[in-house]
Amino acid sequence: MQFSSSLLENAVNEFARLPGIGKKTALRLVLHLLKQDTNDVSQFSEVIAKMRSEIKFCQRCFNVADGDICSICANSMRRQEMICVVENIRDVIAIESTQQYSGTYHVLGGVISPLDGIGPDQLNIESLANRVQKERTEELIFALNPTIQGDTTIYYIQKKLAAASGEQSQNIRITTIARGIAFGGELEYADEMTLARSLQNRLPVENYVSR
Amino acid sequence: MQFSSSLLENAVNEFARLPGIGKKTALRLVLHLLKQDTNDVSQFSEVIAKMRSEIKFCQRCFNVADGDICSICANSMRRQEMICVVENIRDVIAIESTQQYSGTYHVLGGVISPLDGIGPDQLNIESLANRVQKERTEELIFALNPTIQGDTTIYYIQKKLAAASGEQSQNIRITTIARGIAFGGELEYADEMTLARSLQNRLPVENYVSR
Repeated sequence: MQFSSSLLENAVNEFARLPGIGKKTALRLVLHLLKQDTNDVSQFSEVIAKMRSEIKFCQRCFNVADGDICSICANSMRRQEMICVVENIRDVIAIESTQQYSGTYHVLGGVISPLDGIGPDQLNIESLANRVQKERTEELIFALNPTIQGDTTIYYIQKKLAAASGEQSQNIRITTIARGIAFGGELEYADEMTLARSLQNRLPVENYVSR
Repeated sequence: MQFSSSLLENAVNEFARLPGIGKKTALRLVLHLLKQDTNDVSQFSEVIAKMRSEIKFCQRCFNVADGDICSICANSMRRQEMICVVENIRDVIAIESTQQYSGTYHVLGGVISPLDGIGPDQLNIESLANRVQKERTEELIFALNPTIQGDTTIYYIQKKLAAASGEQSQNIRITTIARGIAFGGELEYADEMTLARSLQNRLPVENYVSR
């Protein structure tokens, strides 16, 4: 692509570095911004820069936060004795959007994946173990993606908690989110693993609440 | 979508205002930036703001420029007596990408469209007429989209040039880019108008150069 202005070219190149945005889309976005008011564009640019430089991670659950503690941990209406363990911030947002969960979170920052060089030490697992012991947690809900890596991570954390607290860990309820056929999914297209697991973990019909 | 950080929320909202970018894509882009180095993100933000505040429009052809005159007008290797009239900057970039055109441009900034309230006075038509007279232009190539509005604009400009310069305009060659079946297009799916025109304006086979 040929540009008659290096300012335009640089802006297009910056946008094109974002994931899923190619040169043509980048050009469309830049030309859109070019048509906007200068103040609007400088606001756009300031908000992005400010977000990156000022955003913090909650010292307790590692979710994004404006201060030291995120708004979920700081909210006394939420059940602080319940921790939902997730892989990343996007999962927190997804669960929050359901408006069905009233506990707190713990963001691991990934899952154990030796092939990618990610071991337990790269993740926020030590802090989770400390938190569980210190805060007298009652329930730990694993909401990790149903992959080998996710299952390995659940297994590792479970063992670690059992080893760390001995008998005390008996009091903690450890669960994972249900796995099965999705709403709107069709049985015949489900993979064998999912179908097999959803048969094993079948529910009494009175527990089944349709939306 | 629920956010635990207002910094994050503001950044997502700014991205979501861009055309074709919804909340989910905006979140993906923001979380990508969050993982990048702070310097990279501030560079991203500066380049965008600088582009909007410092970019200029060429005083001769109204293309984007870093200074008063764009790099195409300033290039003495280009045939200055040939003007390609286009609707917007994107069309300049599209034509430049073909690397087949060695003349200059004139960006109208739109086409005449009374329904949208766009008349000749809102477009860079007066400046084109002045330019043609002053610069002793030899050829004017219209590269407008083949719509009623595009054709109206060509007709208007042609009449205006004829009225303005009387006999002198006889020396200017006025052409439009060829319209017909696109390369890779299929005859049976072409609309009747395009097919009819491409029959009327058929070319001798020796002029036909395949890619």
